[in-house]
Amino acid sequence: MRTIWWDVTANTVKMIDQRRLPLALETAEYDDYRAVAEAIATMVIRGAPAIGAAGGYGMALAARQSQAKTPRDLLADLETAKAVLDAARPTAVNLTWSTERVLRRARQSNHPEVRKVANVVLAEAEHIADEDVEINRRLGAHGAAIIPIVPDGANILHHCNTGSLATVDYGTALGVVRAAVEQGKQVHVWVDETRPRLQGARLTAWELMRDGIPMTLIADNAAGHLMRTGQVDVVLFGADRVAANGDVANKIGSYKLAVCAQENGIPCYSVVPTSTIDLGLPNGDAIPIEERGWEEVACFGGTQVAPDGVPVYNPAFDVTPHRYLTGIITEEGICYPPFGQSLRQAKERAEERIRKHEA
Amino acid sequence: MRTIWWDVTANTVKMIDQRRLPLALETAEYDDYRAVAEAIATMVIRGAPAIGAAGGYGMALAARQSQAKTPRDLLADLETAKAVLDAARPTAVNLTWSTERVLRRARQSNHPEVRKVANVVLAEAEHIADEDVEINRRLGAHGAAIIPIVPDGANILHHCNTGSLATVDYGTALGVVRAAVEQGKQVHVWVDETRPRLQGARLTAWELMRDGIPMTLIADNAAGHLMRTGQVDVVLFGADRVAANGDVANKIGSYKLAVCAQENGIPCYSVVPTSTIDLGLPNGDAIPIEERGWEEVACFGGTQVAPDGVPVYNPAFDVTPHRYLTGIITEEGICYPPFGQSLRQAKERAEERIRKHEA
Repeated sequence: MRTIWWDVTANTVKMIDQRRLPLALETAEYDDYRAVAEAIATMVIRGAPAIGAAGGYGMALAARQSQAKTPRDLLADLETAKAVLDAARPTAVNLTWSTERVLRRARQSNHPEVRKVANVVLAEAEHIADEDVEINRRLGAHGAAIIPIVPDGANILHHCNTGSLATVDYGTALGVVRAAVEQGKQVHVWVDETRPRLQGARLTAWELMRDGIPMTLIADNAAGHLMRTGQVDVVLFGADRVAANGDVANKIGSYKLAVCAQENGIPCYSVVPTSTIDLGLPNGDAIPIEERGWEEVACFGGTQVAPDGVPVYNPAFDVTPHRYLTGIITEEGICYPPFGQSLRQAKERAEERIRKHEA
Repeated sequence: MRTIWWDVTANTVKMIDQRRLPLALETAEYDDYRAVAEAIATMVIRGAPAIGAAGGYGMALAARQSQAKTPRDLLADLETAKAVLDAARPTAVNLTWSTERVLRRARQSNHPEVRKVANVVLAEAEHIADEDVEINRRLGAHGAAIIPIVPDGANILHHCNTGSLATVDYGTALGVVRAAVEQGKQVHVWVDETRPRLQGARLTAWELMRDGIPMTLIADNAAGHLMRTGQVDVVLFGADRVAANGDVANKIGSYKLAVCAQENGIPCYSVVPTSTIDLGLPNGDAIPIEERGWEEVACFGGTQVAPDGVPVYNPAFDVTPHRYLTGIITEEGICYPPFGQSLRQAKERAEERIRKHEA
């Protein structure tokens, strides 16, 4: 099952509508890049790698939609589309990384024909999506290397959703879990429900139950109790942006987990594709933190739970300073402190791989 | 507004149905102590001091319901009622403290007439409720002493509900907030929504908005981000049981808050009446932790949010080891480490007060 794909017959982008899960498994279809930007903003699709793929496909739609007669005009249209798509969500760097990559490929193609440039754009979007699946499988393989250091029957605490649904397929932190299970290891996952949008309760629980991986759903508030009472062996989560020093922006609540993990001597890893690493930002304080609407906290499923007119503060992400992380697992290997060096090396290896593909 | 009271005309116990707030302000009425036990278990009334008062009134109902012809038989009926009431919720010690106090008073009364013993029982239940209001006002007055040590315009982070609704009136940790406001101090409260039952979103937000005290509702996951970014000056919560060494059982999630507060150099206080202190337990590991139903986590506002059949672990409380607490605020003053000594002294002062009342 892929989260997002290109329908070659209809020339449209299709994606699982993640707002409807687990009660319904429905597909949304888009023929306009602006609608894809809206789908990202309203979280029809979410998860840093998945919205990276959505950004690429959004660019492919923009190329299809363009009325440009020259490659130069098409590039101008693609730049406009990139700005619209990038603005959909500010924290995850994968979105701009992906649209930038598609745009660069279009510029480099130097085709005289508009149609051929548009084909290059689509091919690169498809490549980004395929590559994400491959990267996640390699992430999982690396991650499995850490599983032996926790006892058999390991209890893994997991925040938000980092599975198939957060990526094109397989997943980042959940990919590590899947790889461990494929290697025959016994694991059990404590699934943080992940307020306010309940990605854990709705998406991670659904994925793990489909795969038959033992799991138990908890309110986020219960995670500290589990850690303090010795019921957690390792904490795994993803990231939406990793700064050059290893500070990590991830779903709100990750910081509390990492602090409590350290306090209890529990290893804590962030699992990311290298596309999530942003060497342009020196540290986590430079990562923009998206604030979302009051209704995500004050309402649920059409039911209002807080008083009318209640003031709400709803940051979608928090920053975990690197000193709380045992390591950052990437498809290029596990990065350990000092992260400044290890992250740069992983990023360089990944970029070398992309250059070989582009050459 | 009182949370619970005795209707002298109907000889019934009335209480605000806290499950319906903030959408409706409704009163539930009980003429059977078993129904009061059920109301405590299903959280029509909740909050350690409030369920203490409910326990006392439940005993008064049991005395009214009893068909006993002799004081001895009445005492036997009261012992049965105490066992039923005490079993309603295991973690908060106030419930057994209160039923024990009523029973002791009935035994000591030595009235030959059953009716007069029943009157003593009701009088003690009323006294416990009245005393709770008085204790909370004194708690608030002591607590206000800590407010000057945080800057004017202090941001207070608060977990669960510790206000009028958690007590008979005024509140414990929210009583401290109210006292500060009454003294003309500028404060702002970050209100943890407090999953899974949302006592913060439903009850604390409602109380603070009614009182016009500035507040902002947050998902529990956002509290760490606020602390790390310097937006919290003090953390306040209540407790359901305090062990002899100062370990505190409180609403699930309190532990994470206390750990993150210490990590960020933010003072963290538990605010309790001395009836919450249980010197019979050496430390927090001895406090029984109630587990509640799966539906509190898997459903939200009547809507199921997790997949069918999802396994859930739902502990209602966690234990915060005393080393994370700056102090424990009681109506007998602020207890500081070493808590073993300061808590015992506070408890002794309070028991001396009760003995004077009983004499």
